[in-house]
Amino acid sequence: MTTKVFGHKAPDTDSTGSPIIWAWYLNEVKGVAAEPVLLGEPNTEAAFVLKHWDLPKPAIIEGVAEGEKVVIVDTNNPAELPEGINKTDITAIIDHHKLVGGLETKGPIDITIRPLACTATIMYDLIGGDLAKAPRGIKGAMLSCILSDTLEFRSPTTTAHDKAVCAALAADLGVSMNELATAMFEAKSDVSSFSDAALLRMDSKEYNVDGTELRVSVLETTAPKLILDRKDSLMASMVDVAKEDGADQVLLFVVDILNEEATLLVPNDLVKKIAEASFGCTVSGDTVVLPGVMSRKKQIIPALKV
Amino acid sequence: MTTKVFGHKAPDTDSTGSPIIWAWYLNEVKGVAAEPVLLGEPNTEAAFVLKHWDLPKPAIIEGVAEGEKVVIVDTNNPAELPEGINKTDITAIIDHHKLVGGLETKGPIDITIRPLACTATIMYDLIGGDLAKAPRGIKGAMLSCILSDTLEFRSPTTTAHDKAVCAALAADLGVSMNELATAMFEAKSDVSSFSDAALLRMDSKEYNVDGTELRVSVLETTAPKLILDRKDSLMASMVDVAKEDGADQVLLFVVDILNEEATLLVPNDLVKKIAEASFGCTVSGDTVVLPGVMSRKKQIIPALKV
Repeated sequence: MTTKVFGHKAPDTDSTGSPIIWAWYLNEVKGVAAEPVLLGEPNTEAAFVLKHWDLPKPAIIEGVAEGEKVVIVDTNNPAELPEGINKTDITAIIDHHKLVGGLETKGPIDITIRPLACTATIMYDLIGGDLAKAPRGIKGAMLSCILSDTLEFRSPTTTAHDKAVCAALAADLGVSMNELATAMFEAKSDVSSFSDAALLRMDSKEYNVDGTELRVSVLETTAPKLILDRKDSLMASMVDVAKEDGADQVLLFVVDILNEEATLLVPNDLVKKIAEASFGCTVSGDTVVLPGVMSRKKQIIPALKV
Repeated sequence: MTTKVFGHKAPDTDSTGSPIIWAWYLNEVKGVAAEPVLLGEPNTEAAFVLKHWDLPKPAIIEGVAEGEKVVIVDTNNPAELPEGINKTDITAIIDHHKLVGGLETKGPIDITIRPLACTATIMYDLIGGDLAKAPRGIKGAMLSCILSDTLEFRSPTTTAHDKAVCAALAADLGVSMNELATAMFEAKSDVSSFSDAALLRMDSKEYNVDGTELRVSVLETTAPKLILDRKDSLMASMVDVAKEDGADQVLLFVVDILNEEATLLVPNDLVKKIAEASFGCTVSGDTVVLPGVMSRKKQIIPALKV
């Protein structure tokens, strides 16, 4: 039985690239038949990375079957995984997020969670010397995943180890980290083809904060103007998205990668109150700039107060 | 703040030794202040191991405080941990059991779960070359944990890696694995001082099987006669233990380490039905011998049918 390797819904570069890396390792090094798959259409940056490294786009699956072998990467959150995930035969989990509880396995399996910026960094460590056998595309995917998750080392989630692994991969491949990251971020910034609702759900996670269900959306971009020019229709769309997804409010943070700041859209008094309580800012108008804020995991979620 | 390192309630050798090993590593290698603690009195084998390797008995704690730093080893099951465990600051989890779901962490932390026989084997891998700095007692605790959890390699949970690590440690220490294991199993078999209820709870885990709550108790011994001679009072005590612990039935498997078989006590028709359905045996009388059955994890739990 082929093991399916996948990351979270709404795949970004790490959730697209890491399954490809790990499926290569299982197939070529461990002798375990494995296939990388996606739980949805990859975002524009991930699509660029596939094309750039000449990697075939993994199949998008609609769901999982009871008893099928799966490896979960880049998440341990059942809400970000297909329904019925606990009925599959989970054989490994590799992740860099907090343990949320909810996944269950039938027996003891390999679980590796590390407080690093990127799943691919953990895979680099787990694969070790066998990485020498990897084709260029696998190493390239690894490099791209880490540049993406660290926002080229600007994100406060970045560790010295993520940086060192990136530098080693770039040297091995003979590529410029800055050129690759710039091209990736440009691809991510090209959001013209997406609807407002699609943008709000593109990189979004739900959190219950003091009883209020918040869908916390982040758009990382080198061209914030493209998004902020659409702020009126984005704010109008928030009402429908919140309703459809059972949330009380959508928060949209537009992260300006190059200027290292986030702009939060403020459509109503609830968000104004949340912004002022959480980030100690004063809001006047329908946006507020939060200098230095780059990471949902490290800076937004821990700060949120309702 | 000192990090407390502990295993599960009703500490056996692995849940007593592994916290000592990891606290040594944190203190002496990682420069993190850490203290091994216990969630109860160690069993007789673990007490022997402490004395044999001249290790001080860790303090027994009554509970955990909100926000205190803890490392959890040899379990990921909240039911085997102090109340309020999710309110502590869990900084790492090292375990070799199935993921049961229920533990939550505030941020991404180090989690290492491996399908190996023993937590100490995983620690051997994580510590790597730094183990050369360890005093004799730490290496001795490691060796004892693995001999205990593998029943000197008789348990089907044993992997080639557990065996290889044991052999390397024994060679390094210049001790006989067989002599050490024999002394440990003798210590574990000395159960004369325990009440029937204490014996039933000594190495016991609750499982819900098809709606029936079973407390599945295992006693590993080289002297099964000492326990089976008490079978009438043990069976009488099962009724009270089940009632007090909210279980429907206690199942007691007396594992004969040397003869590699288990004897299940059969106090009533329910257990007779379970035994026959689960192990394909025919029960006549108040015990049944199950040849080759040594492991709750690998052989008993997966087989249980009510």
